[in-house]
Amino acid sequence: MWRRRPQNQSQQLLFRLMGAVVTREGYFETGLAVLADQGYGGLKLAEVCHRLGVTTGSFYHYFANWSAYTRELVEYWRQQATVRIVEAVRAEKDPHRRIETLIEEALALPHGAEAAIRVWSSIDPDVHAVQAAVDRQRYDIMRESSLEVVGDERQAEVFAACCVYILVGYEQATIPPDNVALRWLAAEMLHTLDSGRLNSLPDAR
Amino acid sequence: MWRRRPQNQSQQLLFRLMGAVVTREGYFETGLAVLADQGYGGLKLAEVCHRLGVTTGSFYHYFANWSAYTRELVEYWRQQATVRIVEAVRAEKDPHRRIETLIEEALALPHGAEAAIRVWSSIDPDVHAVQAAVDRQRYDIMRESSLEVVGDERQAEVFAACCVYILVGYEQATIPPDNVALRWLAAEMLHTLDSGRLNSLPDAR
Repeated sequence: MWRRRPQNQSQQLLFRLMGAVVTREGYFETGLAVLADQGYGGLKLAEVCHRLGVTTGSFYHYFANWSAYTRELVEYWRQQATVRIVEAVRAEKDPHRRIETLIEEALALPHGAEAAIRVWSSIDPDVHAVQAAVDRQRYDIMRESSLEVVGDERQAEVFAACCVYILVGYEQATIPPDNVALRWLAAEMLHTLDSGRLNSLPDAR
Repeated sequence: MWRRRPQNQSQQLLFRLMGAVVTREGYFETGLAVLADQGYGGLKLAEVCHRLGVTTGSFYHYFANWSAYTRELVEYWRQQATVRIVEAVRAEKDPHRRIETLIEEALALPHGAEAAIRVWSSIDPDVHAVQAAVDRQRYDIMRESSLEVVGDERQAEVFAACCVYILVGYEQATIPPDNVALRWLAAEMLHTLDSGRLNSLPDAR
């Protein structure tokens, strides 16, 4: 389950008082927090170290260089926000409950950081590869799970694609994020799945 | 109504045979075609002129410099893909038919070019301002129109936000575009509007 560690001022202060006992995970969580607050353009070594109250020397104790850090950061995000969720959900036998859990997890994702990573992916081919893998993994788990519910390949594809569109659009649109709207639309998607409305698809049997 | 001029090889050949009788609109439509095919990184003076079969001298007859062109290109897109549609739709008295027309227009937008413009907007503050205006205008016309149907401000906001999310997500996700899925989801949104399902919103009356 993905639960982002809160990054607030008191925590930053705590890090400093603790004398820079910062884990690798701390560097990654701070990187995601910087992405969420300042976008890709704000992700700089000085900002990450400043937030953690550590010197650049401490940073280089963990990471060979900046690009090693950013590569690991994006991979950390993929693990936390997709791979771990997909693996946890696969243990659930009931496909409907699996879909409910996936939707709950999607609602709890670090949307601001994800928006920044998608922008980043348009500039950096390595990040783009990770972004494409994430979109695909999210699509696949939703397609597999909904197939077990509706029993039709094409209906499952459409349902999964729509779920991905809604999440991506919520993160990338410039209108203020309306979390209630996202939650309502997620519930509508579940209702649609249950009510057999996917049968109206032109290509479906 | 927005109908993008098709940009195929025979048309490119025709432009050349016509001896470079290229309008300003031709430069803009070609720019949008380049954005759709090659993304923001592919939008270069040489590529636009090559596709039109004109010299850079012809280009500078119309535009003072490259940045004047790109500024006008983005404004051209806003006019064609948003302002004209909103104005045409406002003439329609029946709000439900207005929403149906907006959805049809949304399905016919130049999605590839729009995806590239959103990437561009993350790098260029001027383009970001236009992108934000476009998102806002699309949200506003949908909110106004759906308010006349459902009679509840909050329900109209949620409906409009969801419509924007779906369009943006379709354009920005890295999974292959599934136009049937988009069309099905658009029909679902209309069904939702008609069936009173927005009444289930926690904040709505």
